[in-house]
Amino acid sequence: MKNISLSPNGTEYQLPTEKQSAKELEELKRITTEQRKLGRQIVAVQGLGFVGCVMAAVVADAVDEEEKSLYFAHGQQRASARSFWKVPVINQGIPPVSSSDAEVPKIYHRTVVEKKTLRATWLNYAYEVADIVVVDIQLDATKPAFGDAAQGYCDMSAFRDGMKTLGKYISPECLILVETTVPPGTCENVVKPVIEEEFTKRGIDIKKNPPLIAHSYERVMPGAKYVSSIRDFWRVFAGVNEKSRVIAREFLNNILDTEKYPLTELDNTNASELSKVMENSYRATNIALTLEWAKCAEKIGVDIHKVRAAIRKRKGTHDNLLRPSLGVGGYCLTKDPVLANWAMDAIFHIDEKLKIAIHSVDVNDTMPLHTIDLIKEEFPELKDVKIAVLGISYLENLGDTRHSPSETLIKFLNEYWAIVKAHDPYVEYWAEMENVPIEKSIPDALKDADVVIFAVGHLEYLGLEPEEVVEMAGKKPLIIDCSNFLTDDKIKKYLQAGCKVKGVGKGHIKNLE
Amino acid sequence: MKNISLSPNGTEYQLPTEKQSAKELEELKRITTEQRKLGRQIVAVQGLGFVGCVMAAVVADAVDEEEKSLYFAHGQQRASARSFWKVPVINQGIPPVSSSDAEVPKIYHRTVVEKKTLRATWLNYAYEVADIVVVDIQLDATKPAFGDAAQGYCDMSAFRDGMKTLGKYISPECLILVETTVPPGTCENVVKPVIEEEFTKRGIDIKKNPPLIAHSYERVMPGAKYVSSIRDFWRVFAGVNEKSRVIAREFLNNILDTEKYPLTELDNTNASELSKVMENSYRATNIALTLEWAKCAEKIGVDIHKVRAAIRKRKGTHDNLLRPSLGVGGYCLTKDPVLANWAMDAIFHIDEKLKIAIHSVDVNDTMPLHTIDLIKEEFPELKDVKIAVLGISYLENLGDTRHSPSETLIKFLNEYWAIVKAHDPYVEYWAEMENVPIEKSIPDALKDADVVIFAVGHLEYLGLEPEEVVEMAGKKPLIIDCSNFLTDDKIKKYLQAGCKVKGVGKGHIKNLE
Repeated sequence: MKNISLSPNGTEYQLPTEKQSAKELEELKRITTEQRKLGRQIVAVQGLGFVGCVMAAVVADAVDEEEKSLYFAHGQQRASARSFWKVPVINQGIPPVSSSDAEVPKIYHRTVVEKKTLRATWLNYAYEVADIVVVDIQLDATKPAFGDAAQGYCDMSAFRDGMKTLGKYISPECLILVETTVPPGTCENVVKPVIEEEFTKRGIDIKKNPPLIAHSYERVMPGAKYVSSIRDFWRVFAGVNEKSRVIAREFLNNILDTEKYPLTELDNTNASELSKVMENSYRATNIALTLEWAKCAEKIGVDIHKVRAAIRKRKGTHDNLLRPSLGVGGYCLTKDPVLANWAMDAIFHIDEKLKIAIHSVDVNDTMPLHTIDLIKEEFPELKDVKIAVLGISYLENLGDTRHSPSETLIKFLNEYWAIVKAHDPYVEYWAEMENVPIEKSIPDALKDADVVIFAVGHLEYLGLEPEEVVEMAGKKPLIIDCSNFLTDDKIKKYLQAGCKVKGVGKGHIKNLE
Repeated sequence: MKNISLSPNGTEYQLPTEKQSAKELEELKRITTEQRKLGRQIVAVQGLGFVGCVMAAVVADAVDEEEKSLYFAHGQQRASARSFWKVPVINQGIPPVSSSDAEVPKIYHRTVVEKKTLRATWLNYAYEVADIVVVDIQLDATKPAFGDAAQGYCDMSAFRDGMKTLGKYISPECLILVETTVPPGTCENVVKPVIEEEFTKRGIDIKKNPPLIAHSYERVMPGAKYVSSIRDFWRVFAGVNEKSRVIAREFLNNILDTEKYPLTELDNTNASELSKVMENSYRATNIALTLEWAKCAEKIGVDIHKVRAAIRKRKGTHDNLLRPSLGVGGYCLTKDPVLANWAMDAIFHIDEKLKIAIHSVDVNDTMPLHTIDLIKEEFPELKDVKIAVLGISYLENLGDTRHSPSETLIKFLNEYWAIVKAHDPYVEYWAEMENVPIEKSIPDALKDADVVIFAVGHLEYLGLEPEEVVEMAGKKPLIIDCSNFLTDDKIKKYLQAGCKVKGVGKGHIKNLE
């Protein structure tokens, strides 16, 4: 099995043999000569995850004023069992991610098949010939203790290895453009010394050829504007020296819609790196704040969601107040404050703590426990209570399950020996919770349920009428609305049908009874 | 002196005698008859402070479709030495507050002199004849321990007395519209029982005549749009019963521009009261968050203000990120989280704490100490260090000194035996810090200064050139920029002139040296 890489749709791809690698090298050399003749720069994208795979296509799609392609892009993916399948899949013109954005398959077909400006490879030769390497290696925060994000840290060893590889292969003139969200200080204090060390080993004089490193962060959003959120949006960047800045600026101007969204250049890479994690920490704090108020609202007869709507009328100052819900998921808000807080000590060795942001992560991470408290008001003992969880992704109408709050919810419900059924119309296979089967239909999920949790406000659940829910359950289940999903009218219908109803921040329900 | 009320411009007004009060009563009776004949409702505004005095004028200025005045407004002000002067001043058509908004004197002249629909009085008779009483009594939070807002509370005795007065005088059909920012629960748990008790004493059957009470909060901003911020802006309201809601809705629709800014009606007064304090807590948290990041930025060579500008490019989600500065002042952000947190226990007897909001108040209240830390980096002993504080109001280009962070700054500098000179072009007399003389001119303030603090970014300081500052000081003072006031170019000029420069969140300065 070790020489096999299995794609998500079940196709098996043999890992490349030495002979295949030798052949691939010849092919890369041929492509290099050909692309140089066409006057194109060569860009390698390191890491073909959620950002990298679309970024590579955006680079490959960039044209000059005469509609001529500016870059040839290599998507570099190591020949690992876990991810090698991406190489053959991409080279058929198929994106290695599924998305609700129709632009994703289109841009892949356009760049791989029509323009032939995008190709994936497993060879480091892609770095050797690159004028620019875009770094999109995934970098996670580790939170060893649930609800104590101050203990969180970032294991940078894989990232550091990635930089070492670049240092071994890239030309001294190649720009490393870090796009990964990194702990502040990474470009100056991790990337630069690693590259300098490797350059020095290779006999490159780093005084004459100081490494060219820049940082620029994307603001990608999963969903229908996936490609556009990378290409047609505000970008921040900075470089470690003047030459880095110049090359990064030109590159970003070439591939992004910087006419409509002019670049923002910051003084140094620390600033650009900090900006990204502060941006997400701001949102994380915004959400955490609302949960504290939601808990009060529940006890004083107030619907915090109507209060929020009232506050948001103040355009420009208050209209981005976020909402309490089951919890906070996804890849950014759950980790970025941790990266920042950890970096202050681990990278800069300074004694500054980002207390509000870190406390907010704790509030957000433990938010699903509040929904469990709501259930416990009716079922003090959760053992053998049958609970249907509707929605396991972290966003409405999307199948993204990364750090989903439903994961935390179900883990705790399982610890209490509740009997949990999960359902999500957008998720067929739950990578993070392989042991939790996903019910095929809503009736299957609701059958016999003592508790129905509207965990995520997917459209598919919106049409459900209270009578239907009662009929599917075969009893009058406790209804929990985590996402301000139920209107007051619907809540009244549930109450009339004999169900109890509770909701995160919905303290007014008792007045509707 | 006790029968004298001194106005801010130094005019002495004799407190009214019994004879004058008797005459005033006759006048009020005459006015009542006259106004009733004109078909106008009578509104009394209780409390002629910052909000009440403009609210009274807005009410008096309201007209129907035929441009006929809808209301006669009494501004009620007790005959106290502290505030009685407002009555004669208002009755001359002069507003009892100074403001940069030209509309304030205009609306006073229009309503008092031209339309004759606004008048101030010291008699409770105004309540007796009122169809609506608008409550604008000031209500403060007390924070007994600096930097520990969790200990904060709200002394409601004066407010309760005000309600008692209303209960003694108003007709059972009169709506009490509370506009004061109150701890959540106040209308239901304080106003209602007090009025019910007084009604019962008067033999009014509170079953037949349940008190009419509503809450609606303003979002007034000092400055050039003072009147408009009360009249032409989003309003939230709620009532304790259906009749209260109907009357409040009609009244607000009559006096405010609700065509452009439709009213938001919430389920109950708890919700409306919570909404106001949550709104301001959101902003308080927003600012506090940035200070924690600013402190990091200072140590890692980053200008947090440029980072903030980069983040704010994301319209709709991030464009309201506020900024760190000397600190947070004013009447709302410094107290509203305290009112909310205190109310949960004191009014609702529930065990919920608003940790993020309260921690934010602590960060904000203690923020000026960070500026002192910046000074101490250069002057570890502050004793006898001459410090010029430019700006003592809490907002740029305004003279409002309520809870100004410069007050905290100077109090602590005085404790360290520093020699402080203060200057502010908008403040002649500093009510909160009577012992601190205000220098008449910038050169007077800067003379001999070892440290110059740009505490508030008033326009008057913007033109100051580094050479001038050095010349006025007669030495090369340490420059502290608290408000992102100095551009990089100006900072460079200060550095070239031999000054040291530091700034809140401006860690990039060391790279400019």
